[in-house]
Amino acid sequence: MLEDLKQIVCDANRDLVPSGLVTLTWGNISGIDREAGLIVIKPSGVAYERLQPDCMVVVDLDGRVVEGHLKPSSDTPSHVILYRAFAGIGGVIHTHSRHATMFAQARREIPCLGTTHADHFYGAVPLTRPLTEQEVREDYEANTGRVIVERFAHIDALAMPTVLVAGHAPFAWGPTVGKSLDNAIALEAVAEMAMGTWLLNDRVAPLENYVLEKHYHRKHGPAAYYGQKEE
Amino acid sequence: MLEDLKQIVCDANRDLVPSGLVTLTWGNISGIDREAGLIVIKPSGVAYERLQPDCMVVVDLDGRVVEGHLKPSSDTPSHVILYRAFAGIGGVIHTHSRHATMFAQARREIPCLGTTHADHFYGAVPLTRPLTEQEVREDYEANTGRVIVERFAHIDALAMPTVLVAGHAPFAWGPTVGKSLDNAIALEAVAEMAMGTWLLNDRVAPLENYVLEKHYHRKHGPAAYYGQKEE
Amino acid sequence: MLEDLKQIVCDANRDLVPSGLVTLTWGNISGIDREAGLIVIKPSGVAYERLQPDCMVVVDLDGRVVEGHLKPSSDTPSHVILYRAFAGIGGVIHTHSRHATMFAQARREIPCLGTTHADHFYGAVPLTRPLTEQEVREDYEANTGRVIVERFAHIDALAMPTVLVAGHAPFAWGPTVGKSLDNAIALEAVAEMAMGTWLLNDRVAPLENYVLEKHYHRKHGPAAYYGQKEE
Amino acid sequence: MLEDLKQIVCDANRDLVPSGLVTLTWGNISGIDREAGLIVIKPSGVAYERLQPDCMVVVDLDGRVVEGHLKPSSDTPSHVILYRAFAGIGGVIHTHSRHATMFAQARREIPCLGTTHADHFYGAVPLTRPLTEQEVREDYEANTGRVIVERFAHIDALAMPTVLVAGHAPFAWGPTVGKSLDNAIALEAVAEMAMGTWLLNDRVAPLENYVLEKHYHRKHGPAAYYGQKEE
Repeated sequence: MLEDLKQIVCDANRDLVPSGLVTLTWGNISGIDREAGLIVIKPSGVAYERLQPDCMVVVDLDGRVVEGHLKPSSDTPSHVILYRAFAGIGGVIHTHSRHATMFAQARREIPCLGTTHADHFYGAVPLTRPLTEQEVREDYEANTGRVIVERFAHIDALAMPTVLVAGHAPFAWGPTVGKSLDNAIALEAVAEMAMGTWLLNDRVAPLENYVLEKHYHRKHGPAAYYGQKEE
Repeated sequence: MLEDLKQIVCDANRDLVPSGLVTLTWGNISGIDREAGLIVIKPSGVAYERLQPDCMVVVDLDGRVVEGHLKPSSDTPSHVILYRAFAGIGGVIHTHSRHATMFAQARREIPCLGTTHADHFYGAVPLTRPLTEQEVREDYEANTGRVIVERFAHIDALAMPTVLVAGHAPFAWGPTVGKSLDNAIALEAVAEMAMGTWLLNDRVAPLENYVLEKHYHRKHGPAAYYGQKEE
Repeated sequence: MLEDLKQIVCDANRDLVPSGLVTLTWGNISGIDREAGLIVIKPSGVAYERLQPDCMVVVDLDGRVVEGHLKPSSDTPSHVILYRAFAGIGGVIHTHSRHATMFAQARREIPCLGTTHADHFYGAVPLTRPLTEQEVREDYEANTGRVIVERFAHIDALAMPTVLVAGHAPFAWGPTVGKSLDNAIALEAVAEMAMGTWLLNDRVAPLENYVLEKHYHRKHGPAAYYGQKEE
Repeated sequence: MLEDLKQIVCDANRDLVPSGLVTLTWGNISGIDREAGLIVIKPSGVAYERLQPDCMVVVDLDGRVVEGHLKPSSDTPSHVILYRAFAGIGGVIHTHSRHATMFAQARREIPCLGTTHADHFYGAVPLTRPLTEQEVREDYEANTGRVIVERFAHIDALAMPTVLVAGHAPFAWGPTVGKSLDNAIALEAVAEMAMGTWLLNDRVAPLENYVLEKHYHRKHGPAAYYGQKEE
């Protein structure tokens, strides 16, 4: 079942290594078939170069394994919560990419300091609150998803397809599996550049809002004119 | 038409990936045939590894597409303005390379702190003023070119073949497409080293002017003695 | 003798180059056969790409060469002391990986600032005291092992499989040769991220203890649920 | 003539690219045949991947070209001065490697902060004085060599095989061409780690002198015991 999606999710997970976003096995990508209501996700703790489409695990929207001979990623409950809350997303990615994780550990949002950021993220990349002790002890991975959703109460998840979980690391998503990976790559670049910008000028102001509007809408929505029509 | 130039521009765009200057599709290179008055440029939003010479788009000096089945880079109007203002240039490159972009976001010029800089750039790398809201809303990409040209009112564009657009990223150019790419590579290295120099000594003075003069003229102009004659 | 272990230790040493942990010949890995009481270790000063299993040197738990036509790593006495003190370990690795060495040179422990750290190391990565002049002049490499063991008087070496030697560089270990290398890779990533976190927020607090407990025990011990059962 | 040395010098120059020490054509290596009194050096401004042994240029100890159809490196007079002043050296390398150049631009010596440094360099890496305007205008490259030699009036060039030229970049050397390249690689690593160490602790003290003595003499001189005898 879901052979095409398994291939796509497998390929995207393997692409994590050349993307430079992962160390050891610290990252996972999933994709969803919305009609079937089924999610395909990386198995837990398996090296990327050993992944094959038939290693992928299929779970339903309650996180129950429907198919697969390996255990799914331990972060599966976080992915499930995101798919349930954000109706328009087709892929989810979790990594511990270096600079995004530095911001998550420093517990700082990433302000929009330039057009690179505005091209991908419509405003500052948000930070979740820390989980409580109770939330960590019971149902930890699902609660990780829940604090993300809580933080997005007034944010459009497709215009801001990434988040920093306080003390942990980033999640990203997108309308497709491929766009999710692109967003995670963009996040890491934006985080590295924001950090360097602060080292050069610790009083820098955020990008003028009219530039943010221009760049974001140049690439997204009905008035977009970046890229080719087939994309 | 312009088959040789298409090959050169295509190859230079593909070389962006091993150069380390680009992430995703964040960069584009063009070249000009001055006799024909025609510019060859990368298509918008296409992955570098998929580029072939016949994907390149030909535009005239008013930015109108003359040949090509794909849309040209959304930054084409910026390139056109630069070719019109700077008579001696044969290539233009725009990237969001990490350290140069940090300076653009921090809204700081890159002072000449050493001979590496002086070998390529005759003085501090200039920063444009921010665009006004009006300039961003209407004809944004052409106005990006115009604020660059405005900043170069009293600067020789061939002796200073690069600029930082405030809040955005660098542009570079040169007498040929290949030299434009070399200048963008040199800029990124110089930016990274200037940043590290400041972290080590935040009161460092610019390079002595007589060393700047020596290094620049060792490589450029009638008294140059670096490199082989055929270059 | 010990042909399998020689292959494993040789492969792990060769893997140091793509791991990015080593420069020139600055790193060495060993493994132990606990039943035989014999250690297999890299020869001293030999380039990684020239290593073959039959270059490996076999020493006993007194550090005497039992087999091999090359001199063992000059750090062999440090490895021997660690194998004698930490009964559960099967491999030892010493590198001068960049960020871990920065902490060792700065003489600062690496606090647990996020879940990446907690997934691998149960608390702050400890720092040894400096060796005395007497300890350096006589039996230096064995004394390097001894100050590590001294620092671990009240620390479980399997829950904290790494250390920073003051003014020197890190050592790491693990139940197997492969896990030792993984721990050294995790240490370098954690060090880089801790440093960046401090640059973003120099007053950041350590990770909440209940998150540390959760992440560590998610991957280690009887209640672990990360990864596949065969691992 | 000097076919073996041309091969060695050519290979070492080509190895600059994978070493990560060079950008564009910013680096050159030479070697000397002491009996013949002849130096083999890289041609000026030629891309590393195009170098072949018969591109190498042979010059005498007055810097006059003895053989070769290309112009020698513009830095040839600096190399010549070093070979004349430092009798025991067999190779010279000049690069603009990133972190060493940051120190040269910041005009700070690199103190010995750890054993990695002590393994290669017997004390702080020295910085030259700036050249005077007169020294830059006339005979610049030879004067670059002369300020290095002046700085080494009381330093053993074989125990400290590298230097930072103020506002410029590093030079390194060694008993052989290969050891020169190793020293340049070690310098870059040591510079990066010193910079990071200061970011973590700006009051860090230099390494205890007795550790410096131990590590340096462990690898160098009659009592050395690191590495294999044939090295």
